[in-house]
Amino acid sequence: MDILEKLHSLYGREIDEQLIKYLSKEVSEEFRDAVIYQVSTGGKRLRPLITLTAARACGGDYRVALPAAAIVELIHNYSLIYDDIIDEALLRRNKPTVRAKYGDYAAILIGIWYREAIEEAILETRDPIAFARETANTIRAIDEGERLDILLEYAGRRDPYFVENRLGPRLLSNWEALYNTYVKMISLKTAALIRTAAVFGAMSANAPHCIKPLSDYGTYLGLAFQVLDDILDIFGDVKKFGKEIGKDIKEHKLGNAVVVMALKELGDKDREELLSILGKTTVTNDDVKRAVEIISKTNARGNALRIAMDFAEKSERALSELGSNEFVDDLREILRFTVTREF
Amino acid sequence: MDILEKLHSLYGREIDEQLIKYLSKEVSEEFRDAVIYQVSTGGKRLRPLITLTAARACGGDYRVALPAAAIVELIHNYSLIYDDIIDEALLRRNKPTVRAKYGDYAAILIGIWYREAIEEAILETRDPIAFARETANTIRAIDEGERLDILLEYAGRRDPYFVENRLGPRLLSNWEALYNTYVKMISLKTAALIRTAAVFGAMSANAPHCIKPLSDYGTYLGLAFQVLDDILDIFGDVKKFGKEIGKDIKEHKLGNAVVVMALKELGDKDREELLSILGKTTVTNDDVKRAVEIISKTNARGNALRIAMDFAEKSERALSELGSNEFVDDLREILRFTVTREF
Repeated sequence: MDILEKLHSLYGREIDEQLIKYLSKEVSEEFRDAVIYQVSTGGKRLRPLITLTAARACGGDYRVALPAAAIVELIHNYSLIYDDIIDEALLRRNKPTVRAKYGDYAAILIGIWYREAIEEAILETRDPIAFARETANTIRAIDEGERLDILLEYAGRRDPYFVENRLGPRLLSNWEALYNTYVKMISLKTAALIRTAAVFGAMSANAPHCIKPLSDYGTYLGLAFQVLDDILDIFGDVKKFGKEIGKDIKEHKLGNAVVVMALKELGDKDREELLSILGKTTVTNDDVKRAVEIISKTNARGNALRIAMDFAEKSERALSELGSNEFVDDLREILRFTVTREF
Repeated sequence: MDILEKLHSLYGREIDEQLIKYLSKEVSEEFRDAVIYQVSTGGKRLRPLITLTAARACGGDYRVALPAAAIVELIHNYSLIYDDIIDEALLRRNKPTVRAKYGDYAAILIGIWYREAIEEAILETRDPIAFARETANTIRAIDEGERLDILLEYAGRRDPYFVENRLGPRLLSNWEALYNTYVKMISLKTAALIRTAAVFGAMSANAPHCIKPLSDYGTYLGLAFQVLDDILDIFGDVKKFGKEIGKDIKEHKLGNAVVVMALKELGDKDREELLSILGKTTVTNDDVKRAVEIISKTNARGNALRIAMDFAEKSERALSELGSNEFVDDLREILRFTVTREF
């Protein structure tokens, strides 16, 4: 049993009860199933487990942190519902996405509902005003991160906004700017919420001195997590993670650590070929194979991995400032489990 | 100068400054124009003007009510952004909708941003926890109202959720249930927010005794407003309101007061013909003409108008409980202006 399974067996039932409670507030009988569906499709509950464990690591009672744990899991699912609409995704966790099951427009009404469930959870935290402020900052960060992620796609969008503001043409001639924009994007899209999950533990435990170390722990864990995910989204691992090879190539992404690192090294000819594949309306399996071949000529995979491990090290170092107890150990194990999946 | 123009000249600038302030919080330079666009397309600012006038009617300072006024206008625009996506609308207030200008998926990211601007406004109210609770209730009400409105469409939706849960087949055999569902739908979709606009005035003025009368004033004003809008959405008035004849016929709506009242009176043959027009994938201008002809055989227009006037009377009666001062007079004038447009 890995650490997340262990923690899930301890807290999973209570977390799920909270999610259902906040989502069910005032819901009509005929809407309920559609509203609950997204959180019922599973997921590891990484973020709420971090919140509860962080609260205990700061000397708090995990039960006080349950509403905050619900907030971060609901924010995660709120963003997934809309991301899946925007990416026209059919499957998530091997099940139909909300939009695939109920339709895009129904999914919008469901997404709106999630945000008010978050508000209900905020009202049950120890300090609703402080949690409301952090929640708004976090959702804005994710929204901005998603915007940058789409603007970093090299092709494939029809929305006038995304076409007119594409970042590729501006950033491809300046690798430093591209790399910095990439890191900013993943800080917002992924790391901000994992940071908030950890900080909410400290806030729930009323332990202000824990906020800074937990903020750093969560931020760097989130960054490491996303870079490792990017590696999987290029090289794939169907058996362990259900990830197809070249998912991010098919999705025209420049905003992938491996692609960014490859673009630094590639000669003009290979670079043009990779970009022309990313720019194709439909990317075939042969295209993917060719793109991965080109990328594999470089040290991009190793360099991305090195960046991830650097982030992980910073995360672990932040943790050491929390002192030591069994819950700090659990947080460390969550980090190690997240980054030592085999790559 | 009508009452709304008068109030707008008094408060319009300050309201707009608030909207821009909350929407601009943390927005990136390249996203700002797209975020501001929806509120910059105009609108009468009916809801925030009600909030500010209600605050003064309760003896409060309008400036304390400015964040609350911003909340209701932002909620209104938040719902419009998503409604326009769901209705695939191209024009609003004779300008391109957000989705038409920036694309559906960009519009979703903009909608998410509006909700966090609302949160910022909540944090500047006199009692953030109370305003947060009312705001969540109001947004949920609008969301549920929109759901019911779509489920009352007789055809035209592809989303599995809306197809499977269609209300027409269940309600057409029971006119009372159809009417009750219609009233519930407009209570949620339209009246809930106008009620909140009025109640937020009392809450901002810290005048608990004003809440009940203002709640009733807003609710019934909202109901009257929507029924009158329904009349325009069947019979049209391009010159005064920019409303085409038969808009709601083209949109397959059973959830229109005139259609509901007509269905009560029509004989089997006319009823079937009206329903068959509402069920057409594409409703032509000849179809609209024929539908309006059928409806005009009944007293539906007069009956809908009578219902609206009945709601308006209840709204005015609630107002009388507030006592009398010049701001109560302004609220009365807002009501009269809203319902004595020529029908």
